[in-house]
Amino acid sequence: MLNETYREMLQNKNVIRELSEFAYRRGAEIGYENVFDFSLGNPSLEAPASFTEKMIHLLQTKDTMTLHGYTPTLGNARFKEAVAESLNRRYGMHYKAEHIFPTTGAAGAVAHSVRAISKPGDEIIVIAPYFSEYTPYIEGAGCVKKVIPADTEAFQINFGELERAFTEKTSAVLINTPNNPSGVIYTPETLMTLATMLREQSERFGHTVYLITDEPYRDIVFSGFESPYVSEFYPHTLSCYSFAKSMSIPGERLGYVAVHPDCEGADVIVPMCGQISRGLGHNCPPSIIMQAVAEVIDDVSDLPVYETNMNIINETLQELGISCVKPGDTFYIFPKAPEEDAVAFCKKATEYDLVLVPSDGFGVKGFFRMAYCVDTEKMKRAMPRLKQFITEAYR
Amino acid sequence: MLNETYREMLQNKNVIRELSEFAYRRGAEIGYENVFDFSLGNPSLEAPASFTEKMIHLLQTKDTMTLHGYTPTLGNARFKEAVAESLNRRYGMHYKAEHIFPTTGAAGAVAHSVRAISKPGDEIIVIAPYFSEYTPYIEGAGCVKKVIPADTEAFQINFGELERAFTEKTSAVLINTPNNPSGVIYTPETLMTLATMLREQSERFGHTVYLITDEPYRDIVFSGFESPYVSEFYPHTLSCYSFAKSMSIPGERLGYVAVHPDCEGADVIVPMCGQISRGLGHNCPPSIIMQAVAEVIDDVSDLPVYETNMNIINETLQELGISCVKPGDTFYIFPKAPEEDAVAFCKKATEYDLVLVPSDGFGVKGFFRMAYCVDTEKMKRAMPRLKQFITEAYR
Repeated sequence: MLNETYREMLQNKNVIRELSEFAYRRGAEIGYENVFDFSLGNPSLEAPASFTEKMIHLLQTKDTMTLHGYTPTLGNARFKEAVAESLNRRYGMHYKAEHIFPTTGAAGAVAHSVRAISKPGDEIIVIAPYFSEYTPYIEGAGCVKKVIPADTEAFQINFGELERAFTEKTSAVLINTPNNPSGVIYTPETLMTLATMLREQSERFGHTVYLITDEPYRDIVFSGFESPYVSEFYPHTLSCYSFAKSMSIPGERLGYVAVHPDCEGADVIVPMCGQISRGLGHNCPPSIIMQAVAEVIDDVSDLPVYETNMNIINETLQELGISCVKPGDTFYIFPKAPEEDAVAFCKKATEYDLVLVPSDGFGVKGFFRMAYCVDTEKMKRAMPRLKQFITEAYR
Repeated sequence: MLNETYREMLQNKNVIRELSEFAYRRGAEIGYENVFDFSLGNPSLEAPASFTEKMIHLLQTKDTMTLHGYTPTLGNARFKEAVAESLNRRYGMHYKAEHIFPTTGAAGAVAHSVRAISKPGDEIIVIAPYFSEYTPYIEGAGCVKKVIPADTEAFQINFGELERAFTEKTSAVLINTPNNPSGVIYTPETLMTLATMLREQSERFGHTVYLITDEPYRDIVFSGFESPYVSEFYPHTLSCYSFAKSMSIPGERLGYVAVHPDCEGADVIVPMCGQISRGLGHNCPPSIIMQAVAEVIDDVSDLPVYETNMNIINETLQELGISCVKPGDTFYIFPKAPEEDAVAFCKKATEYDLVLVPSDGFGVKGFFRMAYCVDTEKMKRAMPRLKQFITEAYR
């Protein structure tokens, strides 16, 4: 019989999907270039030329068995070494290849991490605003998601609420910095306070509380900001990364879990991830992509374009008097909606062919997300429309 | 705390892993060309030149956002159309693109299929000999694996045993034809009898019993044999395929589930697979691989090499008087071991630098598997060694 759990998931109203269907339908009517679609986190930049060149070079020179054959269960050795070397060089870490588990993007990394350090019934704490897909990752592992209400002033962590949330069932805290949807980077102070609290709670309950950190936006840092490497602050950290955003290759599904060398279970977590993959019927990311990325591991797309785009929106929002924490990273901005009901606000926006995402799906009410991985030219054309909308509807 | 289930899986003795470690160690001593390793199902042929050419062409001509951007949750549209068209043309089916769910290989296809048509506690029936990874796919879905003892005469289906195995909890029968490890193709008679029994049992229990068919070897058919398309026999069939073996690109992780258009739930099973992927943190196989394969969908490696290799082994086994059903497909052969304890037999073989896999992991005792996806030249060199081993140890 069909699995009712998955069948019922199809019935769930998905606001982002509805918005994207609107954008598609409206685009067919008036041309997609005239729909100001800020709903999707799909990188708008070209992949690094070095990546394309390396792919072609591999295809032209390597025998296809080496290039396309099964990779080892725990991943391509050269890719794992390249990741470890890069993290060690950039962040003064001391990873070895065996601490790196290649995954299908950060999604696979987070889902594997949750399964590795929890058992069904355990609690995983997430901090609002949070990426909505954490829910299926956590519930898919049979765990319970506990949400800490957002610090809507600075989008750091509401530590009072966090401290009250720990129980003996807490197996991990899952954070996302730089953050989708807020664009905010957790400060060193935030990470130090978090680490202290994790140590205290581990001692209180007599077992390690892990930190899972989802960092696909780590390399898109805007001027004047820094993105601390989370694992430096707490040893029991599983760091989840994806090349989707930095190299603009999200469809190729490549990321990794980097297990801190001093993490409890550092010697078994990567092999355990291999066992987790078996049950999911899905071993290893694509071979040629691992081999190509290994050779251009530190190369990135023309990421400063996102800062240009962010500044264009940020200035417009300031002109309009809309409250907003300035993003330090990502390609998202998360302003306060001019009315309490963010869903109603975003529905009204569609009348102006503006596609904005209400904050409700991220665990916060009253905000909206704009993804500015959009052509700068189109960004500029969109700003008068945004002004018109806000002025006509809310002034 | 670390998940004990996955941690304990690391302790399991894995005979194939031990054998492959032996081959690696011994290869370092005497040169890998002198170790006759028949343990691994890793294709030994070049990928079709058309695949490599298409990959290079895509990289040279397409903008990287189209090439490497996020694919839709339910997969690249052109790839889905190409699969449906190919199956319709070759097997007289009437699939539409929406019946095709792209997966990371047949592994992902089987694991998704099991989850889509069962709930935890349901029973999935498998027929020995069976691919050992079915166990984690079934148990990972919370289901119970019920094994039907092998028909060791012909490696078709032991229908008496099968009929007794159905209960009201049976949600599906999972078959693998052409079969790993036996190399045998289920005949049209077998598939007709199976379909009749599935209809009867569905009626008996008042719910559809699905058929999941794992067919990654479908396109390696030897002369004088035919490989029937299983879905033609029973409408409630989820057909799982991989391009790993036919195109020799196993590391690129591309396969699909094809849901029979008349299957119960045909309109929802593919979208449900999309929801299943979400919980696994793993959406869609790699974009560029889907786009390249879509354009060369019917191209294959130089597959007749496997038949040449099979004949070399089969003749040697006949000379030695070792009983064996002649394979009609795959790159496996599954002879009867000359002693009851297949594990002991395979251990002795290593003394002759022959790496053979005992049948126990496939749910049968007293047989061994040889994977002949090996250079034909090396195959020929291995035969005197096989003769020497059998003659010295068992004559």
